[in-house]
Amino acid sequence: MTDGRRIRLDLAYRGTNYCGWQRQNHCATVQGEIEVALHRIVGEPVTIRGSSRTDAGVHALHQVAALNTTGSSIPSERFAPALNANLPPDIRVFRSMEVSPDFDPVGDCTRKRYCYLIGDGPVTSPFLAGVVWDDRFGTLDADAMHTAAQTFLGEHDFASFQSEGSPRQSTVRRIYNISVKRCTTPIPFGPLGLHNENLPQVIVFEVEGNGFLYKMVRTMAGTLAAIGHGKRSVDWVAEVIAAKDRRTAGITAPAEGLYLTGITF
Amino acid sequence: MTDGRRIRLDLAYRGTNYCGWQRQNHCATVQGEIEVALHRIVGEPVTIRGSSRTDAGVHALHQVAALNTTGSSIPSERFAPALNANLPPDIRVFRSMEVSPDFDPVGDCTRKRYCYLIGDGPVTSPFLAGVVWDDRFGTLDADAMHTAAQTFLGEHDFASFQSEGSPRQSTVRRIYNISVKRCTTPIPFGPLGLHNENLPQVIVFEVEGNGFLYKMVRTMAGTLAAIGHGKRSVDWVAEVIAAKDRRTAGITAPAEGLYLTGITF
Repeated sequence: MTDGRRIRLDLAYRGTNYCGWQRQNHCATVQGEIEVALHRIVGEPVTIRGSSRTDAGVHALHQVAALNTTGSSIPSERFAPALNANLPPDIRVFRSMEVSPDFDPVGDCTRKRYCYLIGDGPVTSPFLAGVVWDDRFGTLDADAMHTAAQTFLGEHDFASFQSEGSPRQSTVRRIYNISVKRCTTPIPFGPLGLHNENLPQVIVFEVEGNGFLYKMVRTMAGTLAAIGHGKRSVDWVAEVIAAKDRRTAGITAPAEGLYLTGITF
Repeated sequence: MTDGRRIRLDLAYRGTNYCGWQRQNHCATVQGEIEVALHRIVGEPVTIRGSSRTDAGVHALHQVAALNTTGSSIPSERFAPALNANLPPDIRVFRSMEVSPDFDPVGDCTRKRYCYLIGDGPVTSPFLAGVVWDDRFGTLDADAMHTAAQTFLGEHDFASFQSEGSPRQSTVRRIYNISVKRCTTPIPFGPLGLHNENLPQVIVFEVEGNGFLYKMVRTMAGTLAAIGHGKRSVDWVAEVIAAKDRRTAGITAPAEGLYLTGITF
């Protein structure tokens, strides 16, 4: 920790145009865009730390990050509008505030929430291109998916749901809440309540846990989709968990349907 | 009219990446994309005619087009899925069907509906970038805008609301329905009902008429926004209509907030 203020940022982004959260040298990232904007605002290089390192193409409705600043006299709550004036419109900071110098967005996080969206049916709204999984295999059985998803509740070894590339010491995680539901009428169609009854519905998979392994939510989504399409029974989830082998689970659903929706400290 | 079938297409598109509906030689357009896809499907050049020639960047929740085909044996209702397989995801055909050989999507149109969306407040959702007017001047008075909008109801000479570039013989049009409302809780946030209570609301302006002059809806939106911001009184609309002079009206609101939402035949 350095001297000066510690500032928390609450933000949202559309991940489509970014190689994920974490700064990279040759690809635009959300962290990189925010650090460039901060440098411009405070006049010195600033490093931020986010609660979750979302992958390329993954969106956030609510991400939390923190930074230290010594040089700047900008009031803490003015960082949000100053950043928005210097960021592209697909990254928005909706709140900034001073926090305790020991606030740690990673270490203090006790729960994370994610949501995964699947376009259901032959036609997906043109306004949902890039922000849902445009699955074209036919109608999903949301009730079967919901029933199967309850198997994930509680503490399990999720080794079958971890992709290679970012191994953790323990693959045990606890799931607090999980649901799958069909989004009901009026069928939402792009922005707002505007809708077109000819365009299909969207399946919403929501999950809250004490932490998630690499690509774990997307593998859960791919596994539940196989059940929704009737290729597998609702009992399959228990088998996959017990196998502790990634090869037994469903596909890794694409990044474009995944949203980080909340962090609990 | 040629021999063969006449087919009606009902479609939706996100206009952001297109130079409008009408085919152009050196810029991607919605008509152009569909005609290229049709050529691929039926094996011969096909020209389509749309009910409304939307401008560059304007969206459609429901546009109607028609085409004739002689060579193809594809069932009429199969044109929609065949086109979707050959179109980019921001253009979707949600229905195709055979219609009477004299169906004219322009001449048979009796009413058109449009919707205009304005992001209201300091922060607009990153998922609404490019699909609402991101107006940053502060909170709009939706009630004042709604009251002022009622002045447009009925038959008027809309010369003050016509931009140069596409003059019509008569500038008299009839407005059947018009409203302005603030989109209420839960505040919609990008796809579906997902929302973040920290991000602001959206103002929805809807209008139905027997026809619209060039950029008329966008000039109505710009005029109502000036009233919503308190720069003008609700009586101003009557003054602007009476003046029959484009210079008296408000600004032409940007294309990205405008949606063609329906055609009545």
